[in-house]
Amino acid sequence: MLSKNQHKLITSLQQKKYRNQHQLFVVEGVKVVNEFLTSKFKLEKIFCTEDYYSSIEEYEPQLISENELSKISNLATPNKVLGLFKIPKPTDLVDKGLVLVLDTVNDPGNLGTIIRLCDWFGVSQLVCSKTTVDCYNTKVVQATMGSLTRLPIVYTELQTYLKKTKLPIYGATMFGKKIKETSKKEDAILVMGNESNGISNEIEKLVAYQITIPRYNKDSSVESLNVATATAILLNEFRN
Amino acid sequence: MLSKNQHKLITSLQQKKYRNQHQLFVVEGVKVVNEFLTSKFKLEKIFCTEDYYSSIEEYEPQLISENELSKISNLATPNKVLGLFKIPKPTDLVDKGLVLVLDTVNDPGNLGTIIRLCDWFGVSQLVCSKTTVDCYNTKVVQATMGSLTRLPIVYTELQTYLKKTKLPIYGATMFGKKIKETSKKEDAILVMGNESNGISNEIEKLVAYQITIPRYNKDSSVESLNVATATAILLNEFRN
Repeated sequence: MLSKNQHKLITSLQQKKYRNQHQLFVVEGVKVVNEFLTSKFKLEKIFCTEDYYSSIEEYEPQLISENELSKISNLATPNKVLGLFKIPKPTDLVDKGLVLVLDTVNDPGNLGTIIRLCDWFGVSQLVCSKTTVDCYNTKVVQATMGSLTRLPIVYTELQTYLKKTKLPIYGATMFGKKIKETSKKEDAILVMGNESNGISNEIEKLVAYQITIPRYNKDSSVESLNVATATAILLNEFRN
Repeated sequence: MLSKNQHKLITSLQQKKYRNQHQLFVVEGVKVVNEFLTSKFKLEKIFCTEDYYSSIEEYEPQLISENELSKISNLATPNKVLGLFKIPKPTDLVDKGLVLVLDTVNDPGNLGTIIRLCDWFGVSQLVCSKTTVDCYNTKVVQATMGSLTRLPIVYTELQTYLKKTKLPIYGATMFGKKIKETSKKEDAILVMGNESNGISNEIEKLVAYQITIPRYNKDSSVESLNVATATAILLNEFRN
């Protein structure tokens, strides 16, 4: 059974305001919940349907019906289990390894894909502008497929951060040097910009090396690559 | 004004069955509709709200209210104009250039992103298994941002096609040769597989060169890259 208050709390966590107020976020589905249960994230409370109870008995789940789950779930196909986890304390900024910086990435699907890419390519830290979509947004959490449990993420004021860092700063722009022809440091910052507007003017001023993925098809009028696919290509280049 | 029959026709086109029956598909929004109007695609009928009428008067649009548009629109934020275009006749298979082959890619967003990537990287043709999501699916059309107007796409029986082709066949798998260490032909076929299962067994047998994007982060348990981001990385590699 789900109480009225629990229902209210869980659905409120779809909004950033209430996630911040309660310092909680929602994780759903067998696979992704398992990744969080075995991570450093702290579980607050877990709900599951009867057929899944024995699999996670040690976490003292609260039994709910499939109907109750479907009412609190954000998934098109609710999947047996929903956990509330605590938002961790912000980690410190580090000045080593390959750091990815996001300047106002808005789309939750894009951020989720990018977090998964950071995990794959061993990015040491993801630094997001405060205008970037919240990484504890439910869509982001589900899209990361558990990579969120492994990647240090910091939201900060980018200008201050980029002015202070000792790492060389690369930024993806439309008219930079071709990525293949650019020498790339192993310890570096790569800045990716907003879906429609790219890197903002104030941040672009702090970029030392503008880089570009050349368009092979000169006849095409496609304006740019999607930010997640561009990030995939550039991280792969930095890792070689 | 929108007639009852028009309303019924347009909403029916969300289903592949009715798209095939009527040989029509839906395009929405100012930017994407414009790409189709100036392409080789044939317009069947265009609907718009009053404030957009003068911009496309030459196409003899039918005026509809914003309320009517919101009822037939698939967008979260309907945007002034909706066009019905004719599905073109299938193009012939070609045996040159860089050909991308999709084996059962299911997600419309992934296919849309991949079509945009093909356009960017000048892929000569996209060949899809009949089990791959329909490229005239509304979500695919919108995600391609107009790239669909420039890319030849063929749905065919992959085994027959791959047995016949003279091009070298590369396929993305988990345990292939590292992509950076693989010599890549300019005229070639690259096969990408399903989101969960990768390339199917029957098709893998026809792949001459299995290639892999190595995972840099050995501590990570992330299983694979998303098919669209992996396609981005591999097309970029083939183009260099």
